Amino acid sequence: MRGASSKPLLRALAGEALDPPPWWLMRQAGRYLPEYRALRARTADFVTLCLTPALATEATLQPIRRFGMDAAILFSDILLVPRALGQSVGFAGDGPALDPIIDAAGVGTLALSGIASRLGPVFEAAAQVRGALPEQTALIGFAGAPWTVATYMVEGGSSRDFGRVKSWAYREPQGFAELIGIVEAATIEFLAGQIAAGVEVVQLFDSWAGVLPESGFARWVIAPTARIVAALKARFPACPVIGFPRGSGVLYERYAAETGVDAVSLDTGVPGGFVQARLPARLPVQGNLDPVILKVGGAALREAVADLRRGFAGRPYVFNLGHGVLPDTPAEHVAELSRLLAEPRSPS
Amino acid sequence: MRGASSKPLLRALAGEALDPPPWWLMRQAGRYLPEYRALRARTADFVTLCLTPALATEATLQPIRRFGMDAAILFSDILLVPRALGQSVGFAGDGPALDPIIDAAGVGTLALSGIASRLGPVFEAAAQVRGALPEQTALIGFAGAPWTVATYMVEGGSSRDFGRVKSWAYREPQGFAELIGIVEAATIEFLAGQIAAGVEVVQLFDSWAGVLPESGFARWVIAPTARIVAALKARFPACPVIGFPRGSGVLYERYAAETGVDAVSLDTGVPGGFVQARLPARLPVQGNLDPVILKVGGAALREAVADLRRGFAGRPYVFNLGHGVLPDTPAEHVAELSRLLAEPRSPS
Repeated sequence: MRGASSKPLLRALAGEALDPPPWWLMRQAGRYLPEYRALRARTADFVTLCLTPALATEATLQPIRRFGMDAAILFSDILLVPRALGQSVGFAGDGPALDPIIDAAGVGTLALSGIASRLGPVFEAAAQVRGALPEQTALIGFAGAPWTVATYMVEGGSSRDFGRVKSWAYREPQGFAELIGIVEAATIEFLAGQIAAGVEVVQLFDSWAGVLPESGFARWVIAPTARIVAALKARFPACPVIGFPRGSGVLYERYAAETGVDAVSLDTGVPGGFVQARLPARLPVQGNLDPVILKVGGAALREAVADLRRGFAGRPYVFNLGHGVLPDTPAEHVAELSRLLAEPRSPS
Repeated sequence: MRGASSKPLLRALAGEALDPPPWWLMRQAGRYLPEYRALRARTADFVTLCLTPALATEATLQPIRRFGMDAAILFSDILLVPRALGQSVGFAGDGPALDPIIDAAGVGTLALSGIASRLGPVFEAAAQVRGALPEQTALIGFAGAPWTVATYMVEGGSSRDFGRVKSWAYREPQGFAELIGIVEAATIEFLAGQIAAGVEVVQLFDSWAGVLPESGFARWVIAPTARIVAALKARFPACPVIGFPRGSGVLYERYAAETGVDAVSLDTGVPGGFVQARLPARLPVQGNLDPVILKVGGAALREAVADLRRGFAGRPYVFNLGHGVLPDTPAEHVAELSRLLAEPRSPS
């Protein structure tokens, strides 16, 4: 009888150094896949895709059918949380557009109560996907970490210098902490609901962790992440949490030491030598191929994959990108990657 | 008799730990100053401002008159180099717009010969500023580092994922090396001309150093920087070079060890503890107040300035921001900063 622990992703996250390593790709369900573009084209809008369980399930399963990754990641979006809190969130056009929250009055309009029912379709999709996955394929759920979600909520979308959200955090840290606290509580509900529905691993995406100085990183990245991890561990002690503090450079070391996450996802800029020298030897790491190398393919891809596998040999390791799959990546390059990863590790 | 070495900036860059530290601010000549906005409004376009010596001199001197920084930085732009190489560069609108160079044929259109004469007005401005500066104020010249300049040349402007320039570098590194080589040679001429005209320090801005994995960082950031530093040192051994590999995180350590720069400028994300533990104790560092804190002012500014001064006590240190002054920064906050920096360092 095979239990959950025979899934390669879960074994690696439990501390086993596997060769070949388990793999999946951030944004593996997405625009680079023709079948995703077709699904998207026949769906009214992006939110409908996320919140219609059959559609989210289909998007989640598409890359697994084609490439057989070791994990599916639930098709969803980090901005479903502010939307469920009552903020107006638009997903049309070039990037997300939110009606910005800039002060305590804005925070006062957010409603935690009932959030789990507003996110119910995501949980339903998780249950459907879990029932449809191959036996060896793990299911990952995710959320944005509070700092990153707050940047969108305050800036109203993407930002170049994060002037609004940082100004608030610097000028009035206690007021800003209330916003972070609400997002944190919502994130716990969001992830707990996914786990209860069948997700076996969760990842916290802190895409903008790298724009803060150390003191802000400690307060707005490490502390909320640690509280979320503690709350999830209290309810679901067996569910691993992967943290992705993208771009945090040197501060990966503190993040790994202080948040309680079970594994860290590395962006492309994190050198293997730093990981081996400065992160705990038994800490599983995930990453960190440059998505542009996957787009380029060929010799560059072969060499970079071999380098990564050699660099993380002997450590619990999950192969992934350092950021999401680029929309103009040829699907054939992902197939080639899956073949490369199935080969034995080449000697150095 | 006072020589150049009595200037606080030059003393700090020569290895002295000064208290109070010398200071200047990236983009200290710029839109946050009413007198700059007035100057810009009566000038036809941005390039005219850069390439008319009297106007560039005026823009350079404006912040010195108001705030008395320890250094003036020549008013100029990193994209004057591709323009002088013959690429079409537009500075109107939201960001720069270049006619992108995407292959060897594009590289073939670039012309190194005669570049010094096309950049002559910058050198003339350097000479004028040097003659007009107070006795204790040092003059800094600058250029973009080749990788960063190449990102603009290939992407045609700012970029989100650097897909074009990285694809070229990964797919055809030898062809891309020709582009980097031309920019490198032009950068040496650009900086040598500034030094010959009176600039006393140069800074290499590698604003996009942080988007490369370690192997690319070694090839496209460290190696060209090391060659530029060596070429300048051969001709101007007394002129310090400050390197600013913004966002390079853990790789600041290799950059400091391998490029030969005399000092490194730190972005906001670099923790003081890392600098003290991992960079050579005698290496001067510069930085790294979050520009948003300068915009916010007040208690946040006082505390952050005190923290930085304590954190870098005992090391040769130049106070600066971690990135440029934001356009909506109140000028009064810069005046407050100058007062804070003139006070004795507070005990921890």
